[in-house]
Amino acid sequence: MSFKPISEIGEFGLIERLSKIVAPSLGNTPALVEGIGDDCAVYRTGGPSVQVATTDLLVEQVHFDLLTTPMHHLGSKAISVNVSDVCAMNALPEYALVSIAVPRSVPVEMVEQLYSGMAHAASRYGLAIAGGDTSSSPSGLVISVTMTGKVAEERLTFRKGARPGDMVCVSGRLGGSAAGLKLLMRERAIMLDLLRNNEPYDKEVMAELHDYSEAIRCHLLPEARVDLVRFFHESGIVPTSMIDVSDGLTSDLRHICRRSGVGAHIDEGRIPILAEARTIADELQDDALAWALAGGEDYQLLFTLPKERYGDIEGNREISVLGEIMPEEEGMLLTDLFGMTIDLDESTGGFDHFGGAN
Amino acid sequence: MSFKPISEIGEFGLIERLSKIVAPSLGNTPALVEGIGDDCAVYRTGGPSVQVATTDLLVEQVHFDLLTTPMHHLGSKAISVNVSDVCAMNALPEYALVSIAVPRSVPVEMVEQLYSGMAHAASRYGLAIAGGDTSSSPSGLVISVTMTGKVAEERLTFRKGARPGDMVCVSGRLGGSAAGLKLLMRERAIMLDLLRNNEPYDKEVMAELHDYSEAIRCHLLPEARVDLVRFFHESGIVPTSMIDVSDGLTSDLRHICRRSGVGAHIDEGRIPILAEARTIADELQDDALAWALAGGEDYQLLFTLPKERYGDIEGNREISVLGEIMPEEEGMLLTDLFGMTIDLDESTGGFDHFGGAN
Repeated sequence: MSFKPISEIGEFGLIERLSKIVAPSLGNTPALVEGIGDDCAVYRTGGPSVQVATTDLLVEQVHFDLLTTPMHHLGSKAISVNVSDVCAMNALPEYALVSIAVPRSVPVEMVEQLYSGMAHAASRYGLAIAGGDTSSSPSGLVISVTMTGKVAEERLTFRKGARPGDMVCVSGRLGGSAAGLKLLMRERAIMLDLLRNNEPYDKEVMAELHDYSEAIRCHLLPEARVDLVRFFHESGIVPTSMIDVSDGLTSDLRHICRRSGVGAHIDEGRIPILAEARTIADELQDDALAWALAGGEDYQLLFTLPKERYGDIEGNREISVLGEIMPEEEGMLLTDLFGMTIDLDESTGGFDHFGGAN
Repeated sequence: MSFKPISEIGEFGLIERLSKIVAPSLGNTPALVEGIGDDCAVYRTGGPSVQVATTDLLVEQVHFDLLTTPMHHLGSKAISVNVSDVCAMNALPEYALVSIAVPRSVPVEMVEQLYSGMAHAASRYGLAIAGGDTSSSPSGLVISVTMTGKVAEERLTFRKGARPGDMVCVSGRLGGSAAGLKLLMRERAIMLDLLRNNEPYDKEVMAELHDYSEAIRCHLLPEARVDLVRFFHESGIVPTSMIDVSDGLTSDLRHICRRSGVGAHIDEGRIPILAEARTIADELQDDALAWALAGGEDYQLLFTLPKERYGDIEGNREISVLGEIMPEEEGMLLTDLFGMTIDLDESTGGFDHFGGAN
């Protein structure tokens, strides 16, 4: 028996192999509408709505760094990223179960701050934290949140369902989270440097962070777009497909294209990049477009809608139309500001926990 | 602001403080029947049954040791411990979401073995593994399983509900898991010793482990008692209270007593200790009764039933009557084989992840 490191097949490769192993279990419950492969699992319970359920694991040193992440913000973010998955099904969140593994060195007060961040987010989103589990951890902090939500079955949206001719739309602004993270990582390096040299922490740098509070908030305190789901419900809009932008625009659009069996053409000029992200990119000599395409963690909603519905979204300034869904053989293309065409199917993009090929 | 280490308040103390923080969120969803404080959260979805949901975190070096735990068994156990929580509500399991954080050193094949153990257990219990999340881990393996189940609301059982005069009953045999663990820990020490001295692994010791396969199976491959829940449903039995024996008989009986506002008297002579656990205790010069009372991880069901229902369980050899529920002021007492009375309220017992007082 030969042993293969996970990095050889990457995170998506691993998920594909594991999905095949658990696939036979999906036949055990006839009420299951959708199993693995979307933002949430979906199942019927005999009530007027279907239930959706999702789970996310946040691991210290992989998903967050306690040096740059206040516990209260971390708690709020742990809830928001799951709400975002629920929203991607056009559903509204109801219940969260929260588990944590905590190193013995973490004091009670820090854990309480984490939970008060979660409670605060729960009340904002109108959901209940209804249970959980606690454990010690031999090394870092681990947070696991599982969330259920509900939606009338006729409003349910999946990653699959996009059709050639549909508009490709996205909510809010992109690239902010990656910009905030880059700033915080620079800050962290400065802090560690000062600590190493026993020098006091420089307040000047703090002041500069304050100038970029929007990008930093995008990274530390993302808001799930329940407001957009409510707008859809109120306007009678059911997107033909939807996903939340957690891995990055390229990777998440690819999920929609693969699951729907379609291609897509989008325009660089129509990608709503956060203005502050552009300023930060200039300062750091980095690329804001790359952050929007592959930075991830923006937690906006990427969705498709028939062109006939343009009038319904025209007045909503939170929605941008990026381009159009194409037949599969047209591929996934980006037209840049100079009219050049870039093949998004060939570019890597999106975060891979195991550093493998996406 | 002073900082308190978690060990000062213990796991249950921490849960109590965190519960208070998230309590206000429970008001967000009127369909919630039961929030934190039982084996599962319970909520209505408008269908004919209520939904129950539970989550458990398994952390390497806290809950398992990969030197003594085959991945396939670990996967099966991760499912079983959650099914056991669902059973404690008199419910049957339906869906599981599974998240893992995996160190980069773990090869794909080991992760596949873990999932094949889960898939195997899922098919045995008739549930679907419908989603999850994967991440890398900077140190140990972490497994988070969340499970939902369903039960007709009139059959739902809680920890609360035990009444003076009720019989205290337990399923199966106790102490087996702790006995198996003790053997495996001794084995582990021998293995590490041989490795350290570059000596080959002694097959004689393996042979001896084989003699105690029942206790080792109790620890590595516990079975959740869905069979008992089915028996309850078929016989029209609704226990007045129920919990699964995960922390140990003393600790779990205490949960029932506290939540129900009652006391209990049980008899040592009626505690169904696994015969093999007694043999192992003799060999290790340890105490099988202590394992049954405080070892935990037996995943049997501890429940209470009015005396009038004795006829319904009399013929079921999987059920033992340990004693009787008493008024609260009578306390929690164990009468030992010599007729001496031991105050279980004062004895510690049950596993505490943070090493605090129970």
